[in-house]
Amino acid sequence: MPLIESIPNISEGRRAVVQPIADELASLPGVRLLDLHSDATHNRSVFTLAGEAAPLAGAILRLYQRAIEVIDLREQRGEHPRLGAVDVCPFVPLEDATMADCVELAKTVAAAVAARFGIPVYLYEEAAASPARRHLENIRRGGFEGLPVKMQEEAWAPDFGPRQPHVSAGATVIGARRPLIAYNINLATDRLDIAREIARTVRASNGGLPFVKALGIPLPDRGIVQVSMNLTNHVETPVHRVFEAVRREAAQRGVEILESEIVGLIPAAALEDAAAHFLKVAGFHRAQILEQQLRAGS
Amino acid sequence: MPLIESIPNISEGRRAVVQPIADELASLPGVRLLDLHSDATHNRSVFTLAGEAAPLAGAILRLYQRAIEVIDLREQRGEHPRLGAVDVCPFVPLEDATMADCVELAKTVAAAVAARFGIPVYLYEEAAASPARRHLENIRRGGFEGLPVKMQEEAWAPDFGPRQPHVSAGATVIGARRPLIAYNINLATDRLDIAREIARTVRASNGGLPFVKALGIPLPDRGIVQVSMNLTNHVETPVHRVFEAVRREAAQRGVEILESEIVGLIPAAALEDAAAHFLKVAGFHRAQILEQQLRAGS
Repeated sequence: MPLIESIPNISEGRRAVVQPIADELASLPGVRLLDLHSDATHNRSVFTLAGEAAPLAGAILRLYQRAIEVIDLREQRGEHPRLGAVDVCPFVPLEDATMADCVELAKTVAAAVAARFGIPVYLYEEAAASPARRHLENIRRGGFEGLPVKMQEEAWAPDFGPRQPHVSAGATVIGARRPLIAYNINLATDRLDIAREIARTVRASNGGLPFVKALGIPLPDRGIVQVSMNLTNHVETPVHRVFEAVRREAAQRGVEILESEIVGLIPAAALEDAAAHFLKVAGFHRAQILEQQLRAGS
Repeated sequence: MPLIESIPNISEGRRAVVQPIADELASLPGVRLLDLHSDATHNRSVFTLAGEAAPLAGAILRLYQRAIEVIDLREQRGEHPRLGAVDVCPFVPLEDATMADCVELAKTVAAAVAARFGIPVYLYEEAAASPARRHLENIRRGGFEGLPVKMQEEAWAPDFGPRQPHVSAGATVIGARRPLIAYNINLATDRLDIAREIARTVRASNGGLPFVKALGIPLPDRGIVQVSMNLTNHVETPVHRVFEAVRREAAQRGVEILESEIVGLIPAAALEDAAAHFLKVAGFHRAQILEQQLRAGS
Protein backbone atom coordinates (compact mmCIF):
# COMPACT_ATOMS: atom_id res chain seq x y z
CA MET A 1 0.00 0.00 0.00
CA PRO A 2 1.31 3.50 -0.79
CA LEU A 3 3.12 5.02 2.16
CA ILE A 4 3.20 8.78 2.58
CA GLU A 5 5.34 10.87 4.87
CA SER A 6 4.24 14.12 6.45
CA ILE A 7 6.51 16.57 8.22
CA PRO A 8 4.37 19.19 9.98
CA ASN A 9 6.30 22.08 11.56
CA ILE A 10 4.64 23.74 14.54
CA SER A 11 5.58 27.06 16.15
CA GLU A 12 6.39 25.68 19.60
CA GLY A 13 9.83 24.46 20.63
CA ARG A 14 9.39 23.51 24.29
CA ARG A 15 9.53 19.75 24.64
CA ALA A 16 7.26 19.75 27.68
CA VAL A 17 4.48 21.25 25.56
CA VAL A 18 5.15 19.19 22.44
CA GLN A 19 5.76 15.73 23.90
CA PRO A 20 2.13 15.07 24.97
CA ILE A 21 1.00 15.89 21.44
CA ALA A 22 3.63 13.55 20.00
CA ASP A 23 2.56 10.78 22.37
CA GLU A 24 -1.01 11.18 21.26
CA LEU A 25 -0.10 11.03 17.55
CA ALA A 26 2.13 8.00 18.13
CA SER A 27 -0.79 6.14 19.71
CA LEU A 28 -3.05 6.51 16.66
CA PRO A 29 -3.58 3.32 14.62
CA GLY A 30 -2.12 3.20 11.10
CA VAL A 31 0.35 6.04 11.68
CA ARG A 32 3.95 6.00 12.83
CA LEU A 33 5.77 8.90 14.43
CA LEU A 34 9.23 8.50 12.92
CA ASP A 35 10.87 11.49 14.51
CA LEU A 36 10.32 14.56 16.65
CA HIS A 37 12.79 17.41 16.73
CA SER A 38 12.14 20.31 19.09
CA ASP A 39 14.24 23.44 19.11
CA ALA A 40 13.69 26.05 21.79
CA THR A 41 15.86 28.65 20.02
CA HIS A 42 13.87 28.37 16.81
CA ASN A 43 10.74 27.91 18.96
CA ARG A 44 9.75 25.21 16.56
CA SER A 45 9.12 21.47 16.46
CA VAL A 46 9.24 19.18 13.47
CA PHE A 47 7.19 15.95 13.50
CA THR A 48 7.88 13.21 10.98
CA LEU A 49 4.90 10.92 10.48
CA ALA A 50 4.30 8.11 8.02
CA GLY A 51 1.24 6.11 7.07
CA GLU A 52 -1.30 5.50 4.37
CA ALA A 53 -3.38 8.46 3.24
CA ALA A 54 -6.50 8.03 5.40
CA PRO A 55 -4.93 7.44 8.84
CA LEU A 56 -2.23 10.02 8.09
CA ALA A 57 -4.89 12.65 7.29
CA GLY A 58 -6.59 11.84 10.61
CA ALA A 59 -3.35 12.29 12.53
CA ILE A 60 -2.59 15.62 10.84
CA LEU A 61 -6.05 16.98 11.66
CA ARG A 62 -5.55 15.91 15.28
CA LEU A 63 -2.21 17.76 15.29
CA TYR A 64 -3.89 20.94 14.01
CA GLN A 65 -6.49 20.71 16.74
CA ARG A 66 -3.91 20.25 19.52
CA ALA A 67 -1.56 22.93 18.15
CA ILE A 68 -4.37 25.47 18.06
CA GLU A 69 -5.15 24.67 21.69
CA VAL A 70 -1.62 25.22 23.01
CA ILE A 71 -0.09 27.85 20.69
CA ASP A 72 -1.00 31.54 20.65
CA LEU A 73 1.21 33.38 18.17
CA ARG A 74 0.24 36.74 19.65
CA GLU A 75 2.16 35.82 22.78
CA GLN A 76 5.35 34.31 21.45
CA ARG A 77 8.24 34.86 19.09
CA GLY A 78 10.91 32.60 17.61
CA GLU A 79 13.96 33.13 15.46
CA HIS A 80 12.36 31.12 12.69
CA PRO A 81 9.97 32.89 10.29
CA ARG A 82 6.43 31.56 10.72
CA LEU A 83 2.90 32.17 9.57
CA GLY A 84 0.88 29.88 11.81
CA ALA A 85 0.61 27.59 14.84
CA VAL A 86 1.00 24.71 12.42
CA ASP A 87 3.27 26.64 10.12
CA VAL A 88 3.77 24.24 7.25
CA CYS A 89 2.66 20.68 6.52
CA PRO A 90 4.13 18.92 3.48
CA PHE A 91 3.27 15.44 2.23
CA VAL A 92 6.08 13.42 0.65
CA PRO A 93 5.80 10.20 -1.38
CA LEU A 94 7.57 7.19 0.16
CA GLU A 95 7.41 3.55 -0.92
CA ASP A 96 4.90 2.99 -3.75
CA ALA A 97 3.29 6.41 -3.38
CA THR A 98 3.26 8.98 -6.20
CA MET A 99 3.42 12.76 -6.12
CA ALA A 100 -0.19 12.75 -7.39
CA ASP A 101 -1.22 10.79 -4.26
CA CYS A 102 0.42 13.47 -2.11
CA VAL A 103 -1.14 16.40 -3.98
CA GLU A 104 -4.57 14.81 -3.57
CA LEU A 105 -4.01 14.22 0.14
CA ALA A 106 -2.75 17.79 0.63
CA LYS A 107 -5.97 19.20 -0.90
CA THR A 108 -8.18 16.90 1.18
CA VAL A 109 -6.43 17.89 4.40
CA ALA A 110 -6.41 21.58 3.43
CA ALA A 111 -10.17 21.59 2.90
CA ALA A 112 -10.73 19.87 6.24
CA VAL A 113 -8.42 22.24 8.17
CA ALA A 114 -10.24 25.26 6.75
CA ALA A 115 -13.68 23.82 7.43
CA ARG A 116 -13.07 22.46 10.94
CA PHE A 117 -10.78 25.10 12.42
CA GLY A 118 -11.45 28.25 10.38
CA ILE A 119 -7.80 28.54 9.44
CA PRO A 120 -6.88 29.96 6.01
CA VAL A 121 -4.77 27.50 4.01
CA TYR A 122 -2.25 28.13 1.22
CA LEU A 123 -1.24 25.22 -1.00
CA TYR A 124 2.45 25.10 -1.93
CA GLU A 125 5.10 23.24 -3.94
CA GLU A 126 3.62 20.49 -6.10
CA ALA A 127 0.12 21.26 -4.79
CA ALA A 128 0.38 25.00 -5.55
CA ALA A 129 -2.41 26.58 -7.63
CA SER A 130 -0.02 29.09 -9.22
CA PRO A 131 3.76 29.60 -9.60
CA ALA A 132 3.71 32.50 -7.11
CA ARG A 133 2.58 30.09 -4.41
CA ARG A 134 5.01 27.36 -5.20
CA HIS A 135 7.72 28.49 -2.80
CA LEU A 136 7.13 28.56 0.92
CA GLU A 137 9.19 31.71 1.43
CA ASN A 138 6.89 33.74 -0.84
CA ILE A 139 3.80 32.65 1.04
CA ARG A 140 5.46 33.15 4.39
CA ARG A 141 6.93 36.59 3.65
CA GLY A 142 5.63 39.10 6.22
CA GLY A 143 5.07 36.37 8.79
CA PHE A 144 2.18 36.00 11.21
CA GLU A 145 2.26 39.70 12.05
CA GLY A 146 1.90 40.71 8.39
CA LEU A 147 -1.06 38.44 7.63
CA PRO A 148 -3.97 40.88 8.24
CA VAL A 149 -2.65 43.25 5.57
CA LYS A 150 -1.22 40.65 3.17
CA MET A 151 -4.43 38.65 3.07
CA GLN A 152 -6.37 41.67 1.84
CA GLU A 153 -4.25 41.69 -1.32
CA GLU A 154 -6.05 40.01 -4.20
CA ALA A 155 -2.95 37.91 -4.92
CA TRP A 156 -2.95 36.44 -1.40
CA ALA A 157 -6.50 35.17 -1.01
CA PRO A 158 -6.11 31.71 0.58
CA ASP A 159 -6.77 28.51 -1.36
CA PHE A 160 -9.13 27.33 1.38
CA GLY A 161 -10.78 29.02 4.36
CA PRO A 162 -11.51 32.57 5.47
CA ARG A 163 -9.95 35.75 4.02
CA GLN A 164 -8.49 36.64 7.42
CA PRO A 165 -6.03 34.96 9.77
CA HIS A 166 -7.12 32.82 12.70
CA VAL A 167 -6.74 35.13 15.69
CA SER A 168 -4.15 33.01 17.56
CA ALA A 169 -3.11 30.37 14.99
CA GLY A 170 -2.59 32.60 11.91
CA ALA A 171 -2.61 30.78 8.59
CA THR A 172 -1.08 27.51 7.43
CA VAL A 173 0.70 26.16 4.37
CA ILE A 174 -0.03 22.62 3.13
CA GLY A 175 1.42 20.90 0.12
CA ALA A 176 3.33 18.08 -1.53
CA ARG A 177 7.02 17.89 -2.29
CA ARG A 178 10.03 15.67 -2.70
CA PRO A 179 12.00 14.63 0.41
CA LEU A 180 13.83 17.55 1.99
CA ILE A 181 16.88 17.54 4.23
CA ALA A 182 16.89 20.13 7.00
CA TYR A 183 20.57 20.73 7.54
CA ASN A 184 22.17 23.38 9.73
CA ILE A 185 25.82 24.31 10.02
CA ASN A 186 27.03 26.04 13.19
CA LEU A 187 29.95 28.44 12.84
CA ALA A 188 32.60 29.03 15.49
CA THR A 189 31.79 32.73 15.71
CA ASP A 190 29.10 35.00 17.14
CA ARG A 191 29.10 37.23 14.05
CA LEU A 192 25.62 37.09 12.58
CA ASP A 193 26.73 39.14 9.57
CA ILE A 194 29.04 36.31 8.53
CA ALA A 195 26.31 33.64 8.81
CA ARG A 196 24.00 35.85 6.76
CA GLU A 197 26.63 36.52 4.11
CA ILE A 198 27.35 32.82 3.75
CA ALA A 199 23.63 32.00 3.57
CA ARG A 200 23.20 34.58 0.81
CA THR A 201 26.18 33.18 -1.08
CA VAL A 202 25.17 29.51 -1.01
CA ARG A 203 21.42 29.72 -1.50
CA ALA A 204 19.74 29.16 -4.85
CA SER A 205 17.66 32.34 -4.72
CA ASN A 206 20.85 34.45 -4.88
CA GLY A 207 22.46 32.39 -7.62
CA GLY A 208 24.27 29.95 -5.33
CA LEU A 209 23.72 26.21 -5.18
CA PRO A 210 20.53 24.90 -6.80
CA PHE A 211 17.93 23.41 -4.42
CA VAL A 212 19.42 25.12 -1.37
CA LYS A 213 17.48 27.48 0.88
CA ALA A 214 19.54 29.18 3.56
CA LEU A 215 19.22 31.71 6.37
CA GLY A 216 21.82 33.07 8.77
CA ILE A 217 20.49 33.07 12.33
CA PRO A 218 21.97 33.63 15.80
CA LEU A 219 22.03 30.93 18.50
CA PRO A 220 22.29 33.41 21.39
CA ASP A 221 22.23 30.81 24.17
CA ARG A 222 25.41 29.28 22.70
CA GLY A 223 27.06 32.51 21.58
CA ILE A 224 27.41 31.28 17.99
CA VAL A 225 25.64 31.66 14.66
CA GLN A 226 24.12 29.16 12.27
CA VAL A 227 23.56 28.76 8.56
CA SER A 228 20.13 27.12 8.67
CA MET A 229 19.29 25.30 5.43
CA ASN A 230 16.78 23.22 3.58
CA LEU A 231 18.13 21.01 0.81
CA THR A 232 15.26 20.22 -1.53
CA ASN A 233 17.05 17.88 -3.93
CA HIS A 234 20.01 16.04 -2.42
CA VAL A 235 20.66 14.12 -5.63
CA GLU A 236 21.27 17.30 -7.66
CA THR A 237 22.93 19.22 -4.83
CA PRO A 238 24.42 16.73 -2.37
CA VAL A 239 24.86 17.48 1.33
CA HIS A 240 28.63 17.25 1.02
CA ARG A 241 28.72 19.93 -1.70
CA VAL A 242 26.75 22.24 0.58
CA PHE A 243 29.10 21.48 3.47
CA GLU A 244 32.18 22.17 1.33
CA ALA A 245 30.69 25.44 0.04
CA VAL A 246 29.91 26.70 3.53
CA ARG A 247 33.35 25.62 4.77
CA ARG A 248 35.04 27.47 1.92
CA GLU A 249 33.00 30.63 2.43
CA ALA A 250 33.60 30.52 6.18
CA ALA A 251 37.33 29.96 5.72
CA GLN A 252 37.52 33.04 3.46
CA ARG A 253 36.17 34.99 6.40
CA GLY A 254 38.56 33.38 8.88
CA VAL A 255 35.83 31.26 10.48
CA GLU A 256 35.63 27.50 11.02
CA ILE A 257 32.69 25.14 11.00
CA LEU A 258 32.02 24.05 14.57
CA GLU A 259 29.56 21.28 13.79
CA SER A 260 26.50 20.52 11.72
CA GLU A 261 23.07 19.22 12.53
CA ILE A 262 20.52 17.04 10.75
CA VAL A 263 17.02 18.11 11.78
CA GLY A 264 14.58 15.23 11.51
CA LEU A 265 15.44 12.45 9.11
CA ILE A 266 17.88 12.08 6.24
CA PRO A 267 17.73 9.51 3.42
CA ALA A 268 20.51 6.91 3.75
CA ALA A 269 21.64 7.64 0.19
CA ALA A 270 22.54 11.22 1.14
CA LEU A 271 24.92 9.98 3.85
CA GLU A 272 26.36 7.21 1.69
CA ASP A 273 27.06 9.65 -1.14
CA ALA A 274 28.76 12.00 1.33
CA ALA A 275 30.95 9.20 2.69
CA ALA A 276 32.00 8.14 -0.80
CA HIS A 277 32.88 11.76 -1.61
CA PHE A 278 34.97 12.45 1.48
CA LEU A 279 36.65 9.03 1.36
CA LYS A 280 37.35 9.62 -2.34
CA VAL A 281 35.93 6.20 -3.22
CA ALA A 282 36.49 5.64 -6.93
CA GLY A 283 33.53 4.19 -8.83
CA PHE A 284 31.31 3.95 -5.77
CA HIS A 285 27.90 2.47 -6.39
CA ARG A 286 25.19 1.63 -3.89
CA ALA A 287 25.31 -2.02 -4.89
CA GLN A 288 28.53 -2.15 -2.81
CA ILE A 289 26.51 -1.73 0.36
CA LEU A 290 25.94 -5.06 2.10
CA GLU A 291 22.40 -4.27 3.25
CA GLN A 292 21.40 -3.17 -0.25
CA GLN A 293 22.40 -6.55 -1.58
CA LEU A 294 20.70 -8.47 1.19
CA ARG A 295 17.44 -6.62 0.60
CA ALA A 296 17.68 -6.61 -3.18
CA GLY A 297 17.19 -10.33 -3.38
CA SER A 298 14.74 -10.86 -0.58
CA MET B 1 16.49 -18.58 9.24
CA PRO B 2 20.10 -17.72 10.07
CA LEU B 3 21.84 -16.15 7.10
CA ILE B 4 25.60 -16.59 6.71
CA GLU B 5 27.96 -14.75 4.40
CA SER B 6 31.05 -16.28 2.86
CA ILE B 7 33.79 -14.35 1.11
CA PRO B 8 36.11 -16.83 -0.64
CA ASN B 9 39.24 -15.33 -2.22
CA ILE B 10 40.68 -17.18 -5.18
CA SER B 11 44.10 -16.71 -6.79
CA GLU B 12 42.87 -15.73 -10.25
CA GLY B 13 42.12 -12.17 -11.30
CA ARG B 14 41.13 -12.50 -14.95
CA ARG B 15 37.43 -11.85 -15.31
CA ALA B 16 37.13 -14.11 -18.34
CA VAL B 17 38.24 -17.05 -16.21
CA VAL B 18 36.27 -16.11 -13.10
CA GLN B 19 32.93 -15.05 -14.59
CA PRO B 20 31.79 -18.57 -15.63
CA ILE B 21 32.45 -19.77 -12.09
CA ALA B 22 30.47 -16.84 -10.69
CA ASP B 23 27.60 -17.57 -13.06
CA GLU B 24 27.52 -21.16 -11.92
CA LEU B 25 27.47 -20.21 -8.23
CA ALA B 26 24.76 -17.61 -8.82
CA SER B 27 22.56 -20.27 -10.40
CA LEU B 28 22.61 -22.55 -7.35
CA PRO B 29 19.37 -22.62 -5.33
CA GLY B 30 19.42 -21.16 -1.81
CA VAL B 31 22.55 -19.08 -2.38
CA ARG B 32 23.00 -15.52 -3.55
CA LEU B 33 26.11 -14.11 -5.16
CA LEU B 34 26.15 -10.62 -3.66
CA ASP B 35 29.34 -9.41 -5.25
CA LEU B 36 32.33 -10.37 -7.36
CA HIS B 37 35.48 -8.28 -7.44
CA SER B 38 38.29 -9.33 -9.78
CA ASP B 39 41.66 -7.65 -9.78
CA ALA B 40 44.17 -8.56 -12.46
CA THR B 41 47.03 -6.74 -10.69
CA HIS B 42 46.48 -8.65 -7.47
CA ASN B 43 45.64 -11.70 -9.62
CA ARG B 44 42.81 -12.34 -7.24
CA SER B 45 39.02 -12.45 -7.12
CA VAL B 46 36.76 -12.04 -4.15
CA PHE B 47 33.30 -13.62 -4.17
CA THR B 48 30.65 -12.57 -1.69
CA LEU B 49 27.99 -15.20 -1.18
CA ALA B 50 25.10 -15.42 1.26
CA GLY B 51 22.73 -18.19 2.20
CA GLU B 52 21.76 -20.60 4.91
CA ALA B 53 24.40 -23.05 6.08
CA ALA B 54 23.58 -26.09 3.93
CA PRO B 55 23.23 -24.47 0.48
CA LEU B 56 26.14 -22.15 1.23
CA ALA B 57 28.39 -25.13 2.05
CA GLY B 58 27.39 -26.73 -1.24
CA ALA B 59 28.27 -23.59 -3.19
CA ILE B 60 31.65 -23.27 -1.50
CA LEU B 61 32.55 -26.89 -2.30
CA ARG B 62 31.57 -26.26 -5.90
CA LEU B 63 33.85 -23.20 -5.94
CA TYR B 64 36.79 -25.29 -4.64
CA GLN B 65 36.22 -27.84 -7.36
CA ARG B 66 36.11 -25.24 -10.15
CA ALA B 67 39.07 -23.23 -8.77
CA ILE B 68 41.23 -26.36 -8.66
CA GLU B 69 40.34 -27.05 -12.28
CA VAL B 70 41.37 -23.63 -13.60
CA ILE B 71 44.16 -22.47 -11.29
CA ASP B 72 47.69 -23.86 -11.21
CA LEU B 73 49.79 -21.91 -8.73
CA ARG B 74 53.01 -23.33 -10.17
CA GLU B 75 52.37 -21.29 -13.31
CA GLN B 76 51.30 -17.93 -12.02
CA ARG B 77 52.21 -15.15 -9.65
CA GLY B 78 50.35 -12.17 -8.23
CA GLU B 79 51.23 -9.20 -6.08
CA HIS B 80 49.00 -10.49 -3.32
CA PRO B 81 50.43 -13.09 -0.93
CA ARG B 82 48.64 -16.42 -1.34
CA LEU B 83 48.78 -20.00 -0.16
CA GLY B 84 46.25 -21.71 -2.41
CA ALA B 85 43.98 -21.70 -5.44
CA VAL B 86 41.16 -20.92 -3.03
CA ASP B 87 43.35 -18.90 -0.74
CA VAL B 88 41.03 -18.09 2.13
CA CYS B 89 37.35 -18.71 2.84
CA PRO B 90 35.78 -17.01 5.85
CA PHE B 91 32.21 -17.38 7.09
CA VAL B 92 30.57 -14.32 8.65
CA PRO B 93 27.33 -14.16 10.66
CA LEU B 94 24.59 -12.01 9.10
CA GLU B 95 20.97 -11.69 10.18
CA ASP B 96 20.06 -14.08 13.02
CA ALA B 97 23.26 -16.14 12.67
CA THR B 98 25.76 -16.49 15.50
CA MET B 99 29.53 -16.81 15.43
CA ALA B 100 29.05 -20.38 16.71
CA ASP B 101 26.99 -21.16 13.59
CA CYS B 102 29.85 -19.91 11.45
CA VAL B 103 32.55 -21.85 13.34
CA GLU B 104 30.53 -25.03 12.93
CA LEU B 105 30.04 -24.41 9.22
CA ALA B 106 33.75 -23.65 8.75
CA LYS B 107 34.70 -27.02 10.29
CA THR B 108 32.14 -28.91 8.22
CA VAL B 109 33.37 -27.34 4.99
CA ALA B 110 37.04 -27.80 5.99
CA ALA B 111 36.53 -31.52 6.52
CA ALA B 112 34.78 -31.87 3.17
CA VAL B 113 37.44 -29.90 1.25
CA ALA B 114 40.18 -32.10 2.70
CA ALA B 115 38.29 -35.31 2.02
CA ARG B 116 37.07 -34.55 -1.50
CA PHE B 117 39.98 -32.64 -2.98
CA GLY B 118 43.00 -33.71 -0.92
CA ILE B 119 43.77 -30.13 0.00
CA PRO B 120 45.28 -29.40 3.45
CA VAL B 121 43.13 -26.96 5.43
CA TYR B 122 44.06 -24.53 8.20
CA LEU B 123 41.30 -23.14 10.40
CA TYR B 124 41.67 -19.44 11.31
CA GLU B 125 40.17 -16.56 13.28
CA GLU B 126 37.24 -17.65 15.45
CA ALA B 127 37.55 -21.24 14.17
CA ALA B 128 41.29 -21.47 14.94
CA ALA B 129 42.47 -24.42 17.03
CA SER B 130 45.27 -22.37 18.63
CA PRO B 131 46.26 -18.70 18.99
CA ALA B 132 49.15 -19.16 16.52
CA ARG B 133 46.60 -19.97 13.82
CA ARG B 134 44.22 -17.18 14.58
CA HIS B 135 45.73 -14.67 12.19
CA LEU B 136 45.73 -15.30 8.46
CA GLU B 137 49.13 -13.67 7.94
CA ASN B 138 50.82 -16.20 10.24
CA ILE B 139 49.34 -19.13 8.38
CA ARG B 140 50.07 -17.58 5.00
CA ARG B 141 53.68 -16.58 5.74
CA GLY B 142 55.99 -18.22 3.21
CA GLY B 143 53.23 -18.42 0.63
CA PHE B 144 52.48 -21.25 -1.77
CA GLU B 145 56.18 -21.67 -2.59
CA GLY B 146 57.11 -22.14 1.09
CA LEU B 147 54.46 -24.77 1.84
CA PRO B 148 56.50 -27.98 1.25
CA VAL B 149 59.02 -26.96 3.94
CA LYS B 150 56.62 -25.18 6.31
CA MET B 151 54.20 -28.11 6.43
CA GLN B 152 56.92 -30.40 7.69
CA GLU B 153 57.24 -28.30 10.85
CA GLU B 154 55.29 -29.84 13.73
CA ALA B 155 53.64 -26.47 14.40
CA TRP B 156 52.21 -26.31 10.89
CA ALA B 157 50.47 -29.66 10.51
CA PRO B 158 47.10 -28.81 8.89
CA ASP B 159 43.83 -29.05 10.82
CA PHE B 160 42.36 -31.23 8.08
CA GLY B 161 43.83 -33.13 5.11
CA PRO B 162 47.26 -34.31 4.04
CA ARG B 163 50.59 -33.19 5.47
CA GLN B 164 51.69 -31.88 2.07
CA PRO B 165 50.36 -29.23 -0.30
CA HIS B 166 48.12 -30.05 -3.23
CA VAL B 167 50.47 -29.97 -6.21
CA SER B 168 48.72 -27.15 -8.10
CA ALA B 169 46.23 -25.78 -5.56
CA GLY B 170 48.48 -25.51 -2.47
CA ALA B 171 46.67 -25.29 0.85
CA THR B 172 43.64 -23.31 1.99
CA VAL B 173 42.50 -21.36 5.03
CA ILE B 174 38.91 -21.61 6.25
CA GLY B 175 37.38 -19.92 9.26
CA ALA B 176 34.83 -17.65 10.88
CA ARG B 177 35.12 -13.97 11.62
CA ARG B 178 33.29 -10.70 11.99
CA PRO B 179 32.53 -8.61 8.87
CA LEU B 180 35.66 -7.21 7.28
CA ILE B 181 36.03 -4.20 5.04
CA ALA B 182 38.62 -4.54 2.27
CA TYR B 183 39.67 -0.96 1.73
CA ASN B 184 42.51 0.28 -0.47
CA ILE B 185 43.91 3.77 -0.76
CA ASN B 186 45.78 4.75 -3.93
CA LEU B 187 48.53 7.33 -3.58
CA ALA B 188 49.48 9.87 -6.23
CA THR B 189 53.04 8.58 -6.43
CA ASP B 190 54.95 5.63 -7.84
CA ARG B 191 57.15 5.36 -4.76
CA LEU B 192 56.56 1.92 -3.29
CA ASP B 193 58.74 2.75 -0.26
CA ILE B 194 56.22 5.41 0.77
CA ALA B 195 53.23 3.04 0.47
CA ARG B 196 55.12 0.48 2.53
CA GLU B 197 56.12 3.01 5.19
CA ILE B 198 52.53 4.20 5.53
CA ALA B 199 51.25 0.63 5.70
CA ARG B 200 53.75 -0.13 8.49
CA THR B 201 52.73 3.01 10.37
CA VAL B 202 48.96 2.48 10.28
CA ARG B 203 48.70 -1.27 10.78
CA ALA B 204 47.93 -2.86 14.14
CA SER B 205 50.82 -5.33 14.03
CA ASN B 206 53.31 -2.44 14.18
CA GLY B 207 51.46 -0.58 16.92
CA GLY B 208 49.29 1.52 14.61
CA LEU B 209 45.51 1.46 14.45
CA PRO B 210 43.80 -1.53 16.07
CA PHE B 211 41.99 -3.92 13.69
CA VAL B 212 43.88 -2.66 10.64
CA LYS B 213 45.98 -4.90 8.40
CA ALA B 214 47.95 -3.07 5.72
CA LEU B 215 50.41 -3.72 2.91
CA GLY B 216 52.10 -1.33 0.51
CA ILE B 217 51.93 -2.65 -3.06
CA PRO B 218 52.67 -1.28 -6.53
CA LEU B 219 50.03 -0.86 -9.24
CA PRO B 220 52.51 -0.92 -12.11
CA ASP B 221 49.94 -0.64 -14.89
CA ARG B 222 48.80 2.67 -13.42
CA GLY B 223 52.21 3.93 -12.30
CA ILE B 224 51.04 4.44 -8.73
CA VAL B 225 51.18 2.64 -5.38
CA GLN B 226 48.50 1.45 -3.00
CA VAL B 227 48.03 0.97 0.71
CA SER B 228 45.97 -2.22 0.61
CA MET B 229 44.05 -2.81 3.84
CA ASN B 230 41.66 -5.03 5.70
CA LEU B 231 39.63 -3.40 8.47
CA THR B 232 38.49 -6.15 10.79
CA ASN B 233 36.38 -4.08 13.17
CA HIS B 234 34.95 -0.90 11.67
CA VAL B 235 33.12 -0.01 14.87
CA GLU B 236 36.34 0.17 16.91
CA THR B 237 38.47 1.57 14.09
CA PRO B 238 36.19 3.38 11.63
CA VAL B 239 37.01 3.70 7.94
CA HIS B 240 37.24 7.47 8.22
CA ARG B 241 39.90 7.21 10.95
CA VAL B 242 41.97 4.98 8.68
CA PHE B 243 41.52 7.40 5.78
CA GLU B 244 42.58 10.36 7.92
CA ALA B 245 45.63 8.47 9.23
CA VAL B 246 46.78 7.52 5.73
CA ARG B 247 46.15 11.07 4.49
CA ARG B 248 48.20 12.51 7.36
CA GLU B 249 51.09 10.08 6.85
CA ALA B 250 51.05 10.69 3.10
CA ALA B 251 50.99 14.47 3.55
CA GLN B 252 54.05 14.25 5.81
CA ARG B 253 55.82 12.65 2.87
CA GLY B 254 54.54 15.23 0.39
CA VAL B 255 52.09 12.80 -1.20
CA GLU B 256 48.35 13.10 -1.75
CA ILE B 257 45.60 10.48 -1.75
CA LEU B 258 44.45 9.96 -5.32
CA GLU B 259 41.37 7.87 -4.53
CA SER B 260 40.23 4.94 -2.45
CA GLU B 261 38.50 1.70 -3.27
CA ILE B 262 36.03 -0.53 -1.48
CA VAL B 263 36.64 -4.14 -2.51
CA GLY B 264 33.48 -6.20 -2.26
CA LEU B 265 30.83 -4.97 0.15
CA ILE B 266 30.76 -2.51 3.02
CA PRO B 267 28.19 -2.35 5.82
CA ALA B 268 25.95 0.73 5.49
CA ALA B 269 26.82 1.77 9.06
CA ALA B 270 30.49 2.20 8.12
CA LEU B 271 29.55 4.72 5.41
CA GLU B 272 26.99 6.49 7.56
CA ASP B 273 29.51 6.88 10.39
CA ALA B 274 32.06 8.26 7.92
CA ALA B 275 29.55 10.79 6.55
CA ALA B 276 28.64 11.96 10.06
CA HIS B 277 32.34 12.37 10.86
CA PHE B 278 33.28 14.36 7.77
CA LEU B 279 30.10 16.46 7.88
CA LYS B 280 30.78 17.07 11.61
CA VAL B 281 27.21 16.09 12.48
CA ALA B 282 26.72 16.72 16.20
CA GLY B 283 24.89 13.98 18.09
CA PHE B 284 24.37 11.80 15.02
CA HIS B 285 22.45 8.61 15.63
CA ARG B 286 21.29 6.03 13.14
CA ALA B 287 17.66 6.61 14.14
CA GLN B 288 17.94 9.81 12.06
CA ILE B 289 18.10 7.77 8.88
CA LEU B 290 14.73 7.62 7.14
CA GLU B 291 15.07 4.02 5.98
CA GLN B 292 16.04 2.88 9.49
CA GLN B 293 12.80 4.29 10.82
CA LEU B 294 10.69 2.84 8.04
CA ARG B 295 12.11 -0.61 8.63
CA ALA B 296 12.15 -0.38 12.42
CA GLY B 297 8.38 -0.41 12.63
CA SER B 298 7.55 -2.78 9.82
